[in-house]
Amino acid sequence: MSRKTSGWVVVGKKEILKTPYVSFEAWQVRHKTDASNTLRDFSMVLARDYIAVIGRTETGQAVLCIEDHVADGLDLQVACGAINKGETALAAAQREFGEESGWHAQQLIPLGAAIPQNDRIVSATEGNDGAKTCYMFLATGLTPDKQRLEPSEKIRPILVPWDEAVRAAWSGEVIGSAGLALTDMGSRLILLLADHALKSNV
Amino acid sequence: MSRKTSGWVVVGKKEILKTPYVSFEAWQVRHKTDASNTLRDFSMVLARDYIAVIGRTETGQAVLCIEDHVADGLDLQVACGAINKGETALAAAQREFGEESGWHAQQLIPLGAAIPQNDRIVSATEGNDGAKTCYMFLATGLTPDKQRLEPSEKIRPILVPWDEAVRAAWSGEVIGSAGLALTDMGSRLILLLADHALKSNV
Repeated sequence: MSRKTSGWVVVGKKEILKTPYVSFEAWQVRHKTDASNTLRDFSMVLARDYIAVIGRTETGQAVLCIEDHVADGLDLQVACGAINKGETALAAAQREFGEESGWHAQQLIPLGAAIPQNDRIVSATEGNDGAKTCYMFLATGLTPDKQRLEPSEKIRPILVPWDEAVRAAWSGEVIGSAGLALTDMGSRLILLLADHALKSNV
Repeated sequence: MSRKTSGWVVVGKKEILKTPYVSFEAWQVRHKTDASNTLRDFSMVLARDYIAVIGRTETGQAVLCIEDHVADGLDLQVACGAINKGETALAAAQREFGEESGWHAQQLIPLGAAIPQNDRIVSATEGNDGAKTCYMFLATGLTPDKQRLEPSEKIRPILVPWDEAVRAAWSGEVIGSAGLALTDMGSRLILLLADHALKSNV
């Protein structure tokens, strides 16, 4: 999503750490309503836009992923991953859903875009000079494929009855068969939006 | 939220930049299923847990905030802010909602917790060794109070008819009177959860 009019002026930027996935910068910023007050070391994270995909099998199961994250251990969430350079959100959704869940999707229905955190994380994706953005999709027409993971990805796909997954998105409670709750904001939102879209099309 | 069992071992940590709000570290990690493969410069952000509060006036208006963010300019979102050291989530919700929206809440109804991004952002809050967590609340029994902002906060509160705000949370479309959409994941989720809670209690 592109930047809406802002009164902030970025006076300086210093690169702190650059990695292929995430970079850190310290910015100096001031607001036009308060020009004598420069904020220093305004810490900014640069990260690529990403996609999140909830799959739904022909038999009415939600395709979720149990991922072992460095930050907080085992998480139950939808398939998601960064958009590569030059790749469309749709192509990234197709690729990442296949790689992480091991299912091939014949159809990807867009559910819009949302921003996970809009204060300190800017997009490192060309054409987006705003916050890091998540593009959401519902994957249908699923056929079994082969999981393909990176060394940093420890992911086990799991099928959960659709209505049970939607209930867990509303309640935040543990899904019995997974032994985990849907704690991830994006996973909860995308499940609610996908369910809403499916019911609106009945 | 505390860490669930993980196979990741943190072999080393290096501090890159420390600020009062956000710190950057480079971690070296390896997974027990792949012990010969150490990932270096695994960039980690340390940030405090926070609260998000959707207010609802007696006359059925949603209390939203138009905030000018360094990262992406003008955003329409719910009141939110970091939990101070030693402060409970409930106390932070009371304080931040008052400071940002200019309304005092007599009642704060918990709507659970969720994680904005569970891969690279760890909690710097004592007692949480997992990902940075957002505690969500619905504020009711509102009386007008005085807005109190920090130099980094440029916020204008706005009242939107509740059902219009909920529709925008579902659709991602622009709210006419604000001239902005609800793009923030957390704001959309909290509005849906609050509306669900209100309807379940009828």
